[in-house]
Amino acid sequence: MEKNGNHLEQTQQSEVEGYMCLALQEAEKAFQRGEVPIGAVVVRRGEVIAKAHNLRETNKSATAHAELLAIEEACRTAGGWRLTDTTLYVTVEPCPMCAGAILQSRIDRVVFGATDPKAGACGSLLNFLQDPRFNHQVVIEAGVLEEECTAIMKAFFRQLRSTNKNSLPNQ
Amino acid sequence: MEKNGNHLEQTQQSEVEGYMCLALQEAEKAFQRGEVPIGAVVVRRGEVIAKAHNLRETNKSATAHAELLAIEEACRTAGGWRLTDTTLYVTVEPCPMCAGAILQSRIDRVVFGATDPKAGACGSLLNFLQDPRFNHQVVIEAGVLEEECTAIMKAFFRQLRSTNKNSLPNQ
Repeated sequence: MEKNGNHLEQTQQSEVEGYMCLALQEAEKAFQRGEVPIGAVVVRRGEVIAKAHNLRETNKSATAHAELLAIEEACRTAGGWRLTDTTLYVTVEPCPMCAGAILQSRIDRVVFGATDPKAGACGSLLNFLQDPRFNHQVVIEAGVLEEECTAIMKAFFRQLRSTNKNSLPNQ
Repeated sequence: MEKNGNHLEQTQQSEVEGYMCLALQEAEKAFQRGEVPIGAVVVRRGEVIAKAHNLRETNKSATAHAELLAIEEACRTAGGWRLTDTTLYVTVEPCPMCAGAILQSRIDRVVFGATDPKAGACGSLLNFLQDPRFNHQVVIEAGVLEEECTAIMKAFFRQLRSTNKNSLPNQ
């Protein structure tokens, strides 16, 4: 029994890491475009219903974060604004805007990689996803493939500093 | 001097109410479409650069709140994601998602009408727009044309209850 239990746990963990790998692939696409490398996917009952990456500079839009774009795509795929029975995987802890969009869309669970001590709203600076005063609460799992999710961010900012010291994006 | 000062103050106040009237006109458009009647406008140096109303049901999107749509339109008009020197006027206190979008877009000031004790993030349940730990702070002015902004919300929910008791939108 214990062995089976462990096996199941490992399978579930490798699934979680698999979806985070997809989010990391999205982050890599952002990197290639010169965007802060953050990626997100939305999964409903084992099916990936949305993938997106940060496009703030490309789209010239303050709202074009990976999570928000993924949630909008998931709503289109699902045909409605209620994303019940879904998990959002994102490489970096969501900011208040994206955490708010997670609440609005009734996503059940958020899995993220790297924490964001400067603007994170899922435990770092704020955590209103589990505030019982709101009409929805969200399960949070932090630190999945944290090393890889942190590494791509560090590599991006290192490259940016070395190529153009005068145009650091204001994340 | 005092007389001139009072005159200036009155002019400024009537300007603020004028922009809130435009936001109320947007709320009215939402009402006509059967959407929760919330409207928003973005003003930069005396010029209205965006107007929008809640389209969550129409667009089938969790992110289609008046403020978010107005911010996205303002970014398109301004040609970039930084909405410095702008004020956002909105008929109801922004939720966490919209307050987060206000932070992300570097809007200077938010003026709202009705407070939202159930989900408001500009003083009611949260207030991170003035949290010094974030890299941007926002001036908040509450209660402008509060009576009118509250009245249209009440009228909407009253009508909704009387026409269809089984399909109350989950605001």
